[in-house]
Amino acid sequence: MSTYLTQKVINAIENFKMPEQVGFGTTLSPVMFESTYRNNEWSELKSLPYGPIEIHPTAKVFHYGQEIFEGLKAYISEDNRALLFRPEQNARRFNHSARRMAMPEIPEEIFLTACREITKLSKNFIPKESGSSLYIRPFMFATESTLGIRPSTEFKFMVLASPSGSYFSTGGLNVFIERHAVRACPGGVGTAKTGGNYAASLLSSKKAIAHNCQQTLWLDALEHQKIEEMSGMNFMCVRNNKIETPQLTDTILSGITRASVLELAKRIDIEAIEKTIHINDLIDGIKSGEITEAFACGTAAIITPIEKLVEETGEEFNLENNENSLALKLRRHLLNIQEGREPGPENWSQVVD
Amino acid sequence: MSTYLTQKVINAIENFKMPEQVGFGTTLSPVMFESTYRNNEWSELKSLPYGPIEIHPTAKVFHYGQEIFEGLKAYISEDNRALLFRPEQNARRFNHSARRMAMPEIPEEIFLTACREITKLSKNFIPKESGSSLYIRPFMFATESTLGIRPSTEFKFMVLASPSGSYFSTGGLNVFIERHAVRACPGGVGTAKTGGNYAASLLSSKKAIAHNCQQTLWLDALEHQKIEEMSGMNFMCVRNNKIETPQLTDTILSGITRASVLELAKRIDIEAIEKTIHINDLIDGIKSGEITEAFACGTAAIITPIEKLVEETGEEFNLENNENSLALKLRRHLLNIQEGREPGPENWSQVVD
Repeated sequence: MSTYLTQKVINAIENFKMPEQVGFGTTLSPVMFESTYRNNEWSELKSLPYGPIEIHPTAKVFHYGQEIFEGLKAYISEDNRALLFRPEQNARRFNHSARRMAMPEIPEEIFLTACREITKLSKNFIPKESGSSLYIRPFMFATESTLGIRPSTEFKFMVLASPSGSYFSTGGLNVFIERHAVRACPGGVGTAKTGGNYAASLLSSKKAIAHNCQQTLWLDALEHQKIEEMSGMNFMCVRNNKIETPQLTDTILSGITRASVLELAKRIDIEAIEKTIHINDLIDGIKSGEITEAFACGTAAIITPIEKLVEETGEEFNLENNENSLALKLRRHLLNIQEGREPGPENWSQVVD
Repeated sequence: MSTYLTQKVINAIENFKMPEQVGFGTTLSPVMFESTYRNNEWSELKSLPYGPIEIHPTAKVFHYGQEIFEGLKAYISEDNRALLFRPEQNARRFNHSARRMAMPEIPEEIFLTACREITKLSKNFIPKESGSSLYIRPFMFATESTLGIRPSTEFKFMVLASPSGSYFSTGGLNVFIERHAVRACPGGVGTAKTGGNYAASLLSSKKAIAHNCQQTLWLDALEHQKIEEMSGMNFMCVRNNKIETPQLTDTILSGITRASVLELAKRIDIEAIEKTIHINDLIDGIKSGEITEAFACGTAAIITPIEKLVEETGEEFNLENNENSLALKLRRHLLNIQEGREPGPENWSQVVD
């Protein structure tokens, strides 16, 4: 049993009522964790009932966006175990983000303990349907209460959890090709999972929605030609039965699902290539039939096929999706591992009872 | 008298004790203003005693950095009037930032009323020494409490005020030339006063401090050659007695002090040119003696001369500063207008009693 149970937390858990529809990221587990950083030290991890926090309006997070986050998932297996997927990968990326954003690293043990404990305490609220999960959100933000522009000396680390269904309500994705706005540039903060990168994507996401799309496809800052990623997930396509995905640069977030898919592809003898992919080459490939699939991969999206790419002019490029697609084959394989039906590589799926 | 006085605010103002040393942005006025946006509407402006706010940890500002801010100043004149400097310029830029960040615009009247009222209520706390002021900080952030990545539908607008001395404690600035990291790129959010731009600058500010510098000089994202701006202020230099400053692009914040200096220069018959300035050309000009001055301008900095530019290698380029410099002449002229000793162009300095 968790050592983090206080009476307040026990009460919050006992009184929690699951809504009938959980959605994605809208239902919050009744417990949350926090640790604060002050005088160059992290405080002991503490559990609290989920609810509002008190914070000074001068806190640097509100003004200078010094903030990072992670996203990972716990699944329920058929024999009712809670399974966390590769959490130490998230802990490492979190500290990579911290370094880039001039924030203190957090000991991996604090990060991982918070993720495990919130999973244990939320286990009864994890939806059981395949593809549903407990979406876990570790994040850190600057709390120093002064208005000068400089790195904060005080931070709060928190972990929330959200019992969640699928990220997308649609079967396949419509993706908007962004040929003007830019998400990240060389020398910038594109490899950090920091608020500013997502804030920079929001205006384009409105354009995407106006084009009936759920995601934006970002191109490189310099030539607006090379495919980078989507706003919250990496991009892959299938050309002549081989997977292709943009090679990592300092403008692309190093996705954990991306890395997992590349490793799984090898396991089932599908060739996967990391390379520069030009948008016009992708479109030509779709037109000629050489490229038969494209898909998004990410913690929230798992693997979600792309149905069409849409230009700002309205021009559309359609991809056929069917049950025999590589994307769905990989998705089933990945979910089988995440949900405990198949063994995966060592330590990918970790029981947290 | 202000119509925004509640008993709580009156008590907070009566009980407020000014510290002996105010610093910059560390002493907060005892009153703050807020308005919330929900269902496509801004609520009525409300005054509150300065203090912590309650906010859900799922609020999008903590995760996706959807936030903008402004900075403006109120000065005390010799005959004890409070003078706001060009506040409608800040209101306009705030709404420019809002549009770029997929946030709702705020009626200028709400923005300006909050700035005026907080100035009135804080008037007794404005330090009187020349160059000191009430630094006013309007800001807006996303408060919708869901974890999906999309523009928030709920926001909070707040205005804080800080009785402040000079931003820099040094006489002149040491400026670090950043030749690797990048603050903003074409197609990005460089013209918006949004947290992410400042967050992206913090790691470089650590490098700057390590080189005994107070500011970073940013170069363009594509060639790392063209001077853009410093982390919190615009850049100007003097070549053959003419002022030069980088022309505005979509990667440079359109500074209100910058625009004011360009206008004042004209008034006192100094030629001022907006043009592309290459860093190596600047350095050559300093070496040859063609460039005799460089300075920072911004709301916080007013006009602050640059003493030297410093390369990551440690190489330094020194500028002589003396009381007859153009920078200090312009600073005196600007401060004379801001502090009510000289009339400025119409509406620049606005009495708010």
